[in-house]
Amino acid sequence: MSEPLRIALAGLGTVGGGVIRLIEANASLIARRAGRPIQITAISARNRSKDRGVDLSGYAWEDDMVILGERPDVDVVVELVGGADGPALALARTTFEAGKALVTANKAMIAHHGLELSAKAEAAKVAFKFEAAVAGGIPVIKGLKEGAAANEIKRVYGILNGTCNYILSTMEDTGRDFADVLAEAQAKGYAESDPTFDIDGIDAAHKLSILSAIAFGTAVDFKGVTATGIRRVLAADIAQADALGYYIRLIGMAEPEVDAQGNHRLFQRVHPHLVHRDHPLAHVDGATNAVVAEGNFVGRLLFQGAGAGDGPTASAVVADLIDIARGDIGAPFSIPAAELTQAAPAESGHRTGKAYLRFTVADRPGTLAEIAAAMRDAGVSIESLIQKGRVEVNGEERVLVALVTHEGPESGIAEALRLLEGSPSLAEPPLVMPLLEE
Amino acid sequence: MSEPLRIALAGLGTVGGGVIRLIEANASLIARRAGRPIQITAISARNRSKDRGVDLSGYAWEDDMVILGERPDVDVVVELVGGADGPALALARTTFEAGKALVTANKAMIAHHGLELSAKAEAAKVAFKFEAAVAGGIPVIKGLKEGAAANEIKRVYGILNGTCNYILSTMEDTGRDFADVLAEAQAKGYAESDPTFDIDGIDAAHKLSILSAIAFGTAVDFKGVTATGIRRVLAADIAQADALGYYIRLIGMAEPEVDAQGNHRLFQRVHPHLVHRDHPLAHVDGATNAVVAEGNFVGRLLFQGAGAGDGPTASAVVADLIDIARGDIGAPFSIPAAELTQAAPAESGHRTGKAYLRFTVADRPGTLAEIAAAMRDAGVSIESLIQKGRVEVNGEERVLVALVTHEGPESGIAEALRLLEGSPSLAEPPLVMPLLEE
Repeated sequence: MSEPLRIALAGLGTVGGGVIRLIEANASLIARRAGRPIQITAISARNRSKDRGVDLSGYAWEDDMVILGERPDVDVVVELVGGADGPALALARTTFEAGKALVTANKAMIAHHGLELSAKAEAAKVAFKFEAAVAGGIPVIKGLKEGAAANEIKRVYGILNGTCNYILSTMEDTGRDFADVLAEAQAKGYAESDPTFDIDGIDAAHKLSILSAIAFGTAVDFKGVTATGIRRVLAADIAQADALGYYIRLIGMAEPEVDAQGNHRLFQRVHPHLVHRDHPLAHVDGATNAVVAEGNFVGRLLFQGAGAGDGPTASAVVADLIDIARGDIGAPFSIPAAELTQAAPAESGHRTGKAYLRFTVADRPGTLAEIAAAMRDAGVSIESLIQKGRVEVNGEERVLVALVTHEGPESGIAEALRLLEGSPSLAEPPLVMPLLEE
Repeated sequence: MSEPLRIALAGLGTVGGGVIRLIEANASLIARRAGRPIQITAISARNRSKDRGVDLSGYAWEDDMVILGERPDVDVVVELVGGADGPALALARTTFEAGKALVTANKAMIAHHGLELSAKAEAAKVAFKFEAAVAGGIPVIKGLKEGAAANEIKRVYGILNGTCNYILSTMEDTGRDFADVLAEAQAKGYAESDPTFDIDGIDAAHKLSILSAIAFGTAVDFKGVTATGIRRVLAADIAQADALGYYIRLIGMAEPEVDAQGNHRLFQRVHPHLVHRDHPLAHVDGATNAVVAEGNFVGRLLFQGAGAGDGPTASAVVADLIDIARGDIGAPFSIPAAELTQAAPAESGHRTGKAYLRFTVADRPGTLAEIAAAMRDAGVSIESLIQKGRVEVNGEERVLVALVTHEGPESGIAEALRLLEGSPSLAEPPLVMPLLEE
């Protein structure tokens, strides 16, 4: 058997511990599949003395993780520290400068610096892999880069944040409101104490920007993603959606376009959607993630599995290591960094579809007429007015009006909302969610 | 850009035509992703003069397809002829003997000769790839070999035959009986004029034996697969399952075991199951395929997509070609053929679970008591007796008794059926289907 692939591990949190446990537990099958053993030689983390429940005595320790990238006994650095910049970025740069490969689960760093790092890895002719950065244990980056490589990808979308999906499906199962379920998720450790990145869609936006680059051959453009999270989704919205045959899911969606001037543009949006019950994403519950890719020959592919957790994330990290052990140094974004195209963000106004609109209104005559008039004046056709009724939201009584539009351009809805702006009839800005049909 | 990868194509049926169209339509993105163009140089099929709707004038023609493997202007042979033996097998052998790579969609050939061919490919140090042989366009072989490579796979199962799934989900949607839906599927071209391979589970068994080998590192053992198809599933069974919250799906399932003597054994079975509505496979409709793999770190992974058709199958074939163009010569079954272990087929008697049993009975007193007594004597506990009623099956009236057992070993059910064997109360052998829970 060949020489072992020697690994340095930066970051010994949940995922780092999972990687150590996996490499130890599955050592012999990994060696058989990789054609050589995978061996951890050096490690680094912020706190050396913390008890992590795994024996670290066999590994060399570095207080400064950046040094890991320069050690002569290391072939691949595994970065599990996180953070778009700071030590993680310094380590990545050092690693490529030293001519070593990098594996990371750091979606924020790739979303912000993926292009630079990809170019550095390619210049050094080393691997730069990040399967664990998107959708946890699901091999979706491999699925897009290799499994669907023969296809022009028309669209990629999915459930990219397990915390949001856990909250939405728990709201669905229990009828409870967002704040209540979030608090419980935090208590159980399913949501961070500062849940902003998850529930406001930033985490999903990081992942979506990475998927876009791989699917469409465009430079990673995190700034081009419009992100709206799930804070404003009410239990009442979920009940209304259910009555219509839909489930509410936070969907990240990306689609390349050519605009009227012939310029390439890229639509990237994270937004809660009403997903039709016959769509496979409707049945993705709990912290599960799922990604759909639509190819011009393969049609619709779905990849589903655990989106987070030490075991699944470690599985993705070590899959990358096995690929590297087998000699795979592919371009990180499928095609060389220099060939990735720049595409300005696409407008959303011309996108057509049905939408769900929910208004929180003053309880007085004429409110409904005002909403209906604005829709009419903006040319938006209403398919069904679902409800006008009182509901309790986090202990306060509110009056809600919910409706579903006929198929039409999003610009019409934007215009209707503009007409209603500042109306004393509306207690807060309306909530709009596109429908994702079967 | 490097030299093109030169392809010979054997077989110009639906899939062959799809491969030509794909390579032409997506030529430039394939070249970018593969790092070099993929070029068809030579082709062969049974009938040269047939109009296939694609221009073949640019490709050299061979009347004898086996010669393709020996042409000096060919790097990879793509075999799309089908058949476990005959010309396909002769071509595969010739190709490896000539030191060229082979890509095939031929599940029957791999199920029967995979070990021999894998050893030949490894000896010649060439690629032997067959993503298209299992689950059409879904990159599930790659998902298992590479995406889940860090895991010990505990179990692999799924919906592997699109024809059966189309028939079952159409029966479900329409309430019509098997024979009726099959006839329609044949008329529409969704089922072969001789549908035996599909509806008796042989095709799914071919695919399952390939998945097992990759997932568990065992030598392909098609003969070790027990296959029961869907001929005996009635519309009444589907209605009963639905009332219980289940959908009937033909599931191929494989699981490695260690028996009481410490010997490695492999359970492989294709059988209709009642799939719980909260299981992701319950919602796989029409000709779609889906495969679940359960890993010891990643948990449950699901891969879903089109299981057949020219576009999806061509997508899988060309994905293999792109891998080869990138220089990937992995072991066909993930680990070298010589290291694949032999595992005798596992018994099913000790497998535990709930099961659905349906009896077609004589309409006279005592029938139910006789069934109940046999279950009791065999130690099988009945959870619910669903129905005793008359239904019309293909124009004939029958009396059916359906029940669901409590969790228990399959040996108990086998014993109960043995006790009932030859009973004048039963018009035909009972139909038994395991329940696949959430």
